Amino acid sequence: MIRVNPNYSKIQANYLFAEIASRVKAYQAENPGADVIRLGIGDVTRALPAACVEALEKASREMGSDATFRGYGPDYGYAFLREAIARVDFQSRGCDISPDEIFVSDGAKCDTGNFQEIFDGAARVAVPDPVYPVYVDSNVMAGRTGAPTGDGRYAGLVYLDCNAENGFVPDLPSGPVDVAYLCFPNNPTGAVASRERLAAWVDWARATGALILFDAAYEAFIRDPDVPHSIYEIPGAKEVAVEFRSFSKTAGFTGTRCGYCVVPAECRAFDASGAPVPLQPLWKRRQSTKFNGVSYPVQRAAEAALSPEGRAQCRALVDGYLANAALVASRLEAKGFRCTGARNSPYVWFDCGADSWAFFDKLLREAQVVTTPGAGFGRGGAGFVRISAFNSRENVERALDRIDRVL
Amino acid sequence: MIRVNPNYSKIQANYLFAEIASRVKAYQAENPGADVIRLGIGDVTRALPAACVEALEKASREMGSDATFRGYGPDYGYAFLREAIARVDFQSRGCDISPDEIFVSDGAKCDTGNFQEIFDGAARVAVPDPVYPVYVDSNVMAGRTGAPTGDGRYAGLVYLDCNAENGFVPDLPSGPVDVAYLCFPNNPTGAVASRERLAAWVDWARATGALILFDAAYEAFIRDPDVPHSIYEIPGAKEVAVEFRSFSKTAGFTGTRCGYCVVPAECRAFDASGAPVPLQPLWKRRQSTKFNGVSYPVQRAAEAALSPEGRAQCRALVDGYLANAALVASRLEAKGFRCTGARNSPYVWFDCGADSWAFFDKLLREAQVVTTPGAGFGRGGAGFVRISAFNSRENVERALDRIDRVL
Repeated sequence: MIRVNPNYSKIQANYLFAEIASRVKAYQAENPGADVIRLGIGDVTRALPAACVEALEKASREMGSDATFRGYGPDYGYAFLREAIARVDFQSRGCDISPDEIFVSDGAKCDTGNFQEIFDGAARVAVPDPVYPVYVDSNVMAGRTGAPTGDGRYAGLVYLDCNAENGFVPDLPSGPVDVAYLCFPNNPTGAVASRERLAAWVDWARATGALILFDAAYEAFIRDPDVPHSIYEIPGAKEVAVEFRSFSKTAGFTGTRCGYCVVPAECRAFDASGAPVPLQPLWKRRQSTKFNGVSYPVQRAAEAALSPEGRAQCRALVDGYLANAALVASRLEAKGFRCTGARNSPYVWFDCGADSWAFFDKLLREAQVVTTPGAGFGRGGAGFVRISAFNSRENVERALDRIDRVL
Repeated sequence: MIRVNPNYSKIQANYLFAEIASRVKAYQAENPGADVIRLGIGDVTRALPAACVEALEKASREMGSDATFRGYGPDYGYAFLREAIARVDFQSRGCDISPDEIFVSDGAKCDTGNFQEIFDGAARVAVPDPVYPVYVDSNVMAGRTGAPTGDGRYAGLVYLDCNAENGFVPDLPSGPVDVAYLCFPNNPTGAVASRERLAAWVDWARATGALILFDAAYEAFIRDPDVPHSIYEIPGAKEVAVEFRSFSKTAGFTGTRCGYCVVPAECRAFDASGAPVPLQPLWKRRQSTKFNGVSYPVQRAAEAALSPEGRAQCRALVDGYLANAALVASRLEAKGFRCTGARNSPYVWFDCGADSWAFFDKLLREAQVVTTPGAGFGRGGAGFVRISAFNSRENVERALDRIDRVL
């Protein structure tokens, strides 16, 4: 008799963005003519950079000729892409990361969801609160938590409170933790971590034998010269940190699908006896068994995003979203809302002074603007709302005018 | 202290195809001028159908304009693709499968590797022997097996012997099994299962509460009108079977990446108390948490493979590989080797009369032809070799001439 994974029954709500989509769909079904503006899910809206489109088209044509056709690619990504990533995203910033430490994937959501598979089932997991739900749900499914505790949390998980007091950068855990998820620039709060705060985390991991899973999917939005772009800018991080990156927000790849993770050769975990073992061979084994690489044309498009021309186009794209975010923050602040993010992030996170799902519903029904309720990201997000700058300037301005009228 | 998943240390060899790639690479390093012909990994070599290339290019251009750009797609695939799949691959054969029972993915390897995550950790798993290694390795990693037993097997797994006596179609398990992997047309043996044999498996699953994971990645190669293309052609299968399909071999998508699985609404598993629960919501939850959809241009290319024009082009492609396979089988049979496959499969599986890795090395070193040693697929494959027809006619003929000279 085939029994289901019992951990799935612990999962509480629908995946946050599925719940939002369902509420928007229901609203639209009731109001067929409604002109809904989406500042919710964090999905980019502007076209791919021209360099990426050209590369996609060229690679598509290559696939149409026997002489240039490509079948299965190398398991961890084509050398042309791994080399470009190592050079542009790391070596240019003084991070000593080599191409064979880069593992190309179909996105950071997949990597952050899958990576926990290579850890022991009893690993003690710490997550920020508010949190990108994938870190939590993937560990619930894997059985690393107990039952839900009724306040949106799970027994057995360590929650790292992020709040106005600590600038939404969590303090070090006070109890035992084996693996900690960190995300900077943060989703959902838009907060960034200083070099000093990250160094404290690296020191903690080195001292305790823990591992840091560092999600830097929003790295391209950093404009402040003092903010580290990679955890590998912190000395000693290569032994204790894995980093996740994505082309989704950098180059508009949410529907094109490409990301990567960095697992340095020195990065260590421990076996049952407490002896150090390198983590990289386990990730290689996981990926070569349960994954089969990223579409060749997509890898060429990602490579193009890293060319000088592509980088300039990506920067212009990101600058546009950053300008939107700055406008959202200034308009909300003018209304008296306290905002985080916007400066090095596409997100504006603010205390809405109300229940966040009620506030979400109010903006949806009265302003036809989709936001993301902070409570969907965990107990620590209750009373907050996230607004995403991923839309056209015109739509952002229209949405802000409507919000002005409603609030 | 972060400890690794201890199950990874049970895994014995490298992933088979990684081991082959490594031996070929070593040979080529020693013999830089060698003209190696690859009839090994089962990777297609001929260009994508023109309809697919056109669709890829068109969708790439759509991504280059704000007005037609697509961000995140629907979690389980675009409706245009799910509808085309349901209509062309199932409803046209009288299988009552609807679009919302289709889950689009980046390939059948990923789906067959990931699907076990939604089962209980104690599920008793049966696999064919010889076996596509992903079924075994993904369950080893998940802890559903004991230690390796020294003969290429693992304690705790149920092996379904496939051999010349049963026509490489396994008999029903004699002991308790909760989930059984079946693959027809088979990888690696090329064997197909008759309607009667499949019906016996469906009856077994219904009677015992088990589930069948039916891998039909090679369905497009079936030419015999009596051989079922889908397990859903068998009455009663929808409650007890999940089916995996791929565009890799059908339309040459090994480097383009698209597949899907079918989880019918009626398909049931059981909870800890033995009460039936539908399986589909668990797969939806797994995918919406740990996966983020397939690249939009790739989904358009897959849709094009299902258009009347695309189907004709795919058929011509597959016919070419089938003609190669028939030639390989006839030449080997003329040498006295007993062959399975070739008729409804791109694979020719034969008793090589020797150790299969030794035979592999001999053909690599003396004929510069890459094959796949049967022993790499498990104990039941010892003494067999798989030859893949995925190459140009010219290369297949050259390889056969060289093999003639060596054997």
